[in-house]
Amino acid sequence: MSVTAAQGFTAAGIAAGIKENGNPDLALVVNNGPRLAAAGVFTSNRVKAAPVLWSEQVLKGGIVSAVVLNSGGANACTGPKGFQDTHATAEKVADTLGLNAGEVAVASTGLIGLLLPMDKLLAGVESITGQLSEHGGEKAAIAIKTTDTVHKTAVVSKDGWTVGGMAKGAGMLAPGLATMLVVLTTDADVDSENLDRALRAATRTTFDRVDSDGCMSTNDTVLLLASGASQVSPEQAEFAEAVRAVCDDLGQQLIRDAEGASKDIKVEVVGAASEDDAVEVGRSIARNNLLKCAIHGEDPNWGRVLSAIGTTRAAFEPDRLNVAINGVWVCKNGGVGEDRDKVDMRYREVHIVADLAAGTETATIWTNDLTADYVHENSAYSS
Amino acid sequence: MSVTAAQGFTAAGIAAGIKENGNPDLALVVNNGPRLAAAGVFTSNRVKAAPVLWSEQVLKGGIVSAVVLNSGGANACTGPKGFQDTHATAEKVADTLGLNAGEVAVASTGLIGLLLPMDKLLAGVESITGQLSEHGGEKAAIAIKTTDTVHKTAVVSKDGWTVGGMAKGAGMLAPGLATMLVVLTTDADVDSENLDRALRAATRTTFDRVDSDGCMSTNDTVLLLASGASQVSPEQAEFAEAVRAVCDDLGQQLIRDAEGASKDIKVEVVGAASEDDAVEVGRSIARNNLLKCAIHGEDPNWGRVLSAIGTTRAAFEPDRLNVAINGVWVCKNGGVGEDRDKVDMRYREVHIVADLAAGTETATIWTNDLTADYVHENSAYSS
Repeated sequence: MSVTAAQGFTAAGIAAGIKENGNPDLALVVNNGPRLAAAGVFTSNRVKAAPVLWSEQVLKGGIVSAVVLNSGGANACTGPKGFQDTHATAEKVADTLGLNAGEVAVASTGLIGLLLPMDKLLAGVESITGQLSEHGGEKAAIAIKTTDTVHKTAVVSKDGWTVGGMAKGAGMLAPGLATMLVVLTTDADVDSENLDRALRAATRTTFDRVDSDGCMSTNDTVLLLASGASQVSPEQAEFAEAVRAVCDDLGQQLIRDAEGASKDIKVEVVGAASEDDAVEVGRSIARNNLLKCAIHGEDPNWGRVLSAIGTTRAAFEPDRLNVAINGVWVCKNGGVGEDRDKVDMRYREVHIVADLAAGTETATIWTNDLTADYVHENSAYSS
Repeated sequence: MSVTAAQGFTAAGIAAGIKENGNPDLALVVNNGPRLAAAGVFTSNRVKAAPVLWSEQVLKGGIVSAVVLNSGGANACTGPKGFQDTHATAEKVADTLGLNAGEVAVASTGLIGLLLPMDKLLAGVESITGQLSEHGGEKAAIAIKTTDTVHKTAVVSKDGWTVGGMAKGAGMLAPGLATMLVVLTTDADVDSENLDRALRAATRTTFDRVDSDGCMSTNDTVLLLASGASQVSPEQAEFAEAVRAVCDDLGQQLIRDAEGASKDIKVEVVGAASEDDAVEVGRSIARNNLLKCAIHGEDPNWGRVLSAIGTTRAAFEPDRLNVAINGVWVCKNGGVGEDRDKVDMRYREVHIVADLAAGTETATIWTNDLTADYVHENSAYSS
């Protein structure tokens, strides 16, 4: 499964000693072709980690023969030395496998501001290349975990071809695009231009609408590699839908594993004048700490939804706003609606519908509640 | 002290039964003249509580003879009935004191989405008018508390004239302008136009730069009333500075009493290309939940400062950014700087300096850490 569900790919995951606790921390995904097409989307954070700067350059060529990923260190805010380290990692992979370093993407995740232990990393690359396997996708997915409690993989199989992938992410999760690492693979015969089109369309409505904690990472990377090994060239629409389905599945897994969360909150904005309005309102609601605390306390506090909507530039009239929480319209026309005691909030998933009554556009943003566990986990992360 | 420090004002605070726990919940401030000049600034939240809509109209005339304030209910998202209730409250104050209702400002604070118990409120107005006193400022300040643990007052006395005031606010504290209620009074002889100028200048660099939890209220109100009773007409610059000093003092008190907070964080942005850039960067840092958790854990996690800066549109180059925490430059030129173990974070106040190295403009935003106590307090607020 994972990145080796599609034909033409091998992968591996090992413990290279980058993490002090000895957990797996190095993954490698290799595209054995015949095609080596690739597309990528990266964090819109202007402070970008060294591997993001490197991989953005690699992807410009539209060819990726291998992706090396490490957890245990983000290699972000590490200056010229950090960039040299990323370059050296790609060179080492290329030398060991007989590839061109300019076709080796690199992704890193972990604490910002620390240089990677390059002796361990380079020795790890030498070791991991000997373990590449068509069944290595699971191990690769495990090796990229940081605070993730579970590894995340997804697969969609169609008529003769497959899209699969792995993701990691649990905190600093507010993609713009994608606070996480994701590698997707397919054996469909698709060129890099159509991969790019499918990937951008998919991430725009999946990872880009996951907003666990409002904090955008320096290392977000989503790569899509095509081997062409199935020798099937699907219709672009069908291919794009398969990519979207895998992204959606992985995005949901990210939300369900968010740090400290006890609720997954689906914020559905309807009746918006534009999709941009719907996204802006959804994100504002999803980032409201007071609302996230209320949901944690199983309190259907719709006033906090309205106060969040009120901070946006979206088209709406305050006295026409409606809000439903788990199917109960607790706010109608900007005021008190149905009895809030009717709202059942015992389950992990909470569904908020915000109706702007200003049009027909919609968007859905996924977030989590704000919990004492989130605070505890993130107060102690680097200590 | 408080709103009765300046001559020409009387005030009172009582328990009218709006709060179920019997704590004080109704305050009245009366300007006895000879001048009745006033200025006001209100929340920029587009979902505005009924008393904000009312008081904005009152302030257009530049004359306020009384301000009636209640805690125990925000009267926000309460529709036409909520607005009628605000109107009726102003009418009752006017009738009882022989004033014009169009010169009575109203402010409310508490839970959004509940109608006020008007029988208790109107009976309270009748009762409180009999208790107005030149020494009533303290009681008024106590009566506007919600989750505040202490009441907040400040006074600046100059040569023959005084500016004083009271504030309430502890959560939903991200003014734009002012997530809170504030009434300032002065006996200086200043017309409404100059009051307005002084108040807007003061709030822009004080309350507007307090951002405890990123959540903007529907009820923010800051009023400045002048009685002219001192018969002194100060220079505008000197008057404006006195108003700014009182606002700054009250703003600091709001931060120190923020819900659940264990740290007060001064985010000072320097080297910005424009003041707008400095404010945008300061606010982005101040709203970063991961950083706020790190500060709670006394972890000088400068990587989270950089990742917050990276989400802004401000002018900067990532490899020129510098960050100091409590005087130690832990990040230099976008990478590792001085030893982070040198940072002493034992004390309540934490000082972060973010140097954008892009100009000479500066701004300071005040915020708090994110704590399990904040989550607990705001999970249970309305239950």
